[in-house]
Amino acid sequence: MRIKKAVITAAARGERLYPVADTVQKAMLPVIDIDGLHKPAIQIICEEAFASGIEEICVVCAPGDGSRYQEAFTSLRNNLLKSYKGVQWAREEAEKIDHLTSRIQFVEQTEALGYGQAVYCARNFVNNEPFLLLLGDYLYVSNLREKRCAAQLIEIALQENCSVSAVNPTVEHQISRYGTLTGKHLPNQPGVYQIDKIIEKPSLSVAELELQTPGLRMGYYLCFFGMHVLVPAVFDILEKHLNTGETNIQLTPALQELAATDKYLALEVKGNRYDLSKKLGMLQAQIALGLAGEAHDETLTTLVELLAEANLRQLN
Amino acid sequence: MRIKKAVITAAARGERLYPVADTVQKAMLPVIDIDGLHKPAIQIICEEAFASGIEEICVVCAPGDGSRYQEAFTSLRNNLLKSYKGVQWAREEAEKIDHLTSRIQFVEQTEALGYGQAVYCARNFVNNEPFLLLLGDYLYVSNLREKRCAAQLIEIALQENCSVSAVNPTVEHQISRYGTLTGKHLPNQPGVYQIDKIIEKPSLSVAELELQTPGLRMGYYLCFFGMHVLVPAVFDILEKHLNTGETNIQLTPALQELAATDKYLALEVKGNRYDLSKKLGMLQAQIALGLAGEAHDETLTTLVELLAEANLRQLN
Repeated sequence: MRIKKAVITAAARGERLYPVADTVQKAMLPVIDIDGLHKPAIQIICEEAFASGIEEICVVCAPGDGSRYQEAFTSLRNNLLKSYKGVQWAREEAEKIDHLTSRIQFVEQTEALGYGQAVYCARNFVNNEPFLLLLGDYLYVSNLREKRCAAQLIEIALQENCSVSAVNPTVEHQISRYGTLTGKHLPNQPGVYQIDKIIEKPSLSVAELELQTPGLRMGYYLCFFGMHVLVPAVFDILEKHLNTGETNIQLTPALQELAATDKYLALEVKGNRYDLSKKLGMLQAQIALGLAGEAHDETLTTLVELLAEANLRQLN
Repeated sequence: MRIKKAVITAAARGERLYPVADTVQKAMLPVIDIDGLHKPAIQIICEEAFASGIEEICVVCAPGDGSRYQEAFTSLRNNLLKSYKGVQWAREEAEKIDHLTSRIQFVEQTEALGYGQAVYCARNFVNNEPFLLLLGDYLYVSNLREKRCAAQLIEIALQENCSVSAVNPTVEHQISRYGTLTGKHLPNQPGVYQIDKIIEKPSLSVAELELQTPGLRMGYYLCFFGMHVLVPAVFDILEKHLNTGETNIQLTPALQELAATDKYLALEVKGNRYDLSKKLGMLQAQIALGLAGEAHDETLTTLVELLAEANLRQLN
């Protein structure tokens, strides 16, 4: 088993980060990455994949966005070389963007038929290999210096030769927002579960009855982290769902079927992810990346200064 | 004396916030304002002016940017009404954007002849009235709940009927980045100075000799805050400088002449300003606005959670 391809869905969820309603514009928002450099959010997601052994990326985007991403990256690259003429880090960044654009392709989701259908759009790109699935508006921060979140997931998938979904223990009042699952601990594999059951956005009462997982802290459940390694069999399941004529095809029901038919694991990823579409999502992601990386001291100083100012303001 | 017009320079400083090299794109970056709503940075600056009694705004921008700002605001407004159909705050936001676009005009700086020349481009708009001058890539946060930074400045300008520049005491190792000045305290006017001397980006040795101001903390100097109320006489001075054929016309030399000929005050503004072009500038501005406004508790919780996670990360 080899995992060399990643699919990033950038079409399904959109309109929410007012005032940047435009998904391309949103994906190109500047964030300071763990290497201390400003980059568009989408570039940071792609570099997470590349740093985890991925060689080719397919971004599923809205109609017309493909060429706009290409243009955005081209102007970014050219402007970088122009604005920072002869500067070493700028040359290296430009090379990273060249590498990125040569390894990335865009597939347009022509109809908004749900997240599952967005994933299905990448079927030809994936071409019958297992693949890494990421969300276009999540940023991931690993707790392990030497191993990105995607790398942790891919490691288990290769070792166990099966599909693996990243999960994290989530406090009960938040589970109604996520796909939530339960399973059996794999012996001698801390944080790895054989998935028994998945329920999309469960109510607390349903979760209490059906989704308790032994060994978690009281009131915590295993929720999807927004990162999966999936075998191509998932496309056959999605195709079946599409053939029903259903107009809102979600991924979770397909994963439920996958769990029933295939070996399918969940991994407690050591890290956090930040949803750029949430109100304070950009801010959270930026601070988290700042604190996790090269800009740690700068970021910490900034926070302390700002808290001091805010405290002063309270006194006025 | 009335102060109903504001000039915002959005052309002079640009290219620095990689990867958002485009000034329009940068001005439209989403920031959560003190009212807790996401807005483009430029809208937050304009609302600072409106909240301080300004009725008309002129944005001095790069060639071609004027129409792009108009389009950006139009699509923002339309998308807002589409995405949040029938939602109260969205309707109110759309009305604010309508108010903004009906009160704003764009003047293009056709040649990059320096910040002073950018200001000069607004001469016809200002039309012989005193005006508020703001920077397009600064966000201002007042320490006074009921009085914005611009309002503090305008209050003194009206009361003293003269030009007033906002200043803040700045620690000596930073003064080489700013216009720095000294003057005499006005009797019974805390934080107000009659300006004696202004030097642009002084060396520490020059500052020690010529720019000490009695009453400030040791090692602190009065530096420009990036906000002024100026009388139209400044345009005559700028015109004289332009007529020399000089190709980099700065504002500070014109203000030095203004100080020599007119009554010209400096005010220690109660507040802070954040330079969006600096590396952590967007992050600083966002946290500061978050902590200063409606999103205070949310922002504080976010910071605490993130610091806890970062601390956990250190332990791995």
